[in-house]
Amino acid sequence: MERRTISLRVALRPDTLLGPGKADLLQGIRDTGSIAAAGRRMGMSYKRAWYLIDTLNNSFEEPLVVASKGGRTGGGAQLTTPGNAVLDGYRRMEAAATSAVADELAHLVELLKPAID
Amino acid sequence: MERRTISLRVALRPDTLLGPGKADLLQGIRDTGSIAAAGRRMGMSYKRAWYLIDTLNNSFEEPLVVASKGGRTGGGAQLTTPGNAVLDGYRRMEAAATSAVADELAHLVELLKPAID
Repeated sequence: MERRTISLRVALRPDTLLGPGKADLLQGIRDTGSIAAAGRRMGMSYKRAWYLIDTLNNSFEEPLVVASKGGRTGGGAQLTTPGNAVLDGYRRMEAAATSAVADELAHLVELLKPAID
Repeated sequence: MERRTISLRVALRPDTLLGPGKADLLQGIRDTGSIAAAGRRMGMSYKRAWYLIDTLNNSFEEPLVVASKGGRTGGGAQLTTPGNAVLDGYRRMEAAATSAVADELAHLVELLKPAID
């Protein structure tokens, strides 16, 4: 994943946080079609990945992730329409925040010690 | 401290992160004139607070926090000109990012289950 200059966590409600971890997990499910694979590429246990998805699913009116039926490959998972909306919305917020802070960030970087390369 | 809808962490450099914790600590030093008191109001040990400030001081060309001379009260600490600039710059970034994500955030909130109050 590319280097990000900001990390954004938003409180949809005081008890419902959406940050880089959950967003990357949703992204991973979209990309891989599997909760296990999505967790794995983040170095996250299946249990933890499943717990985060379950928490998200329970926070929204409709689930963000649904599991496909089993079958020989053990099934898979995919984002629902609201799941895609949440992930895309988060990415737009990340991009908007990155632009919004760019000038100020450049000022602060000027105050740093020169980098030792 | 007021409730924030976003939490912003910025990478000034890949190894130099500035987020809500360090910002609140700088704020606490500005408000209380003491590293210990600033840490205490965040439930942070003096050792941890001092470590974070030392890390910040070493990242910037000039220290962000300087200790006052001892004396009977054990001295105190205050933000330098760059220390105030970093804190103020971070607060402006927080405000800019909060505005930048507001519309998208409102959309996502509409997808939540109704709150149980």
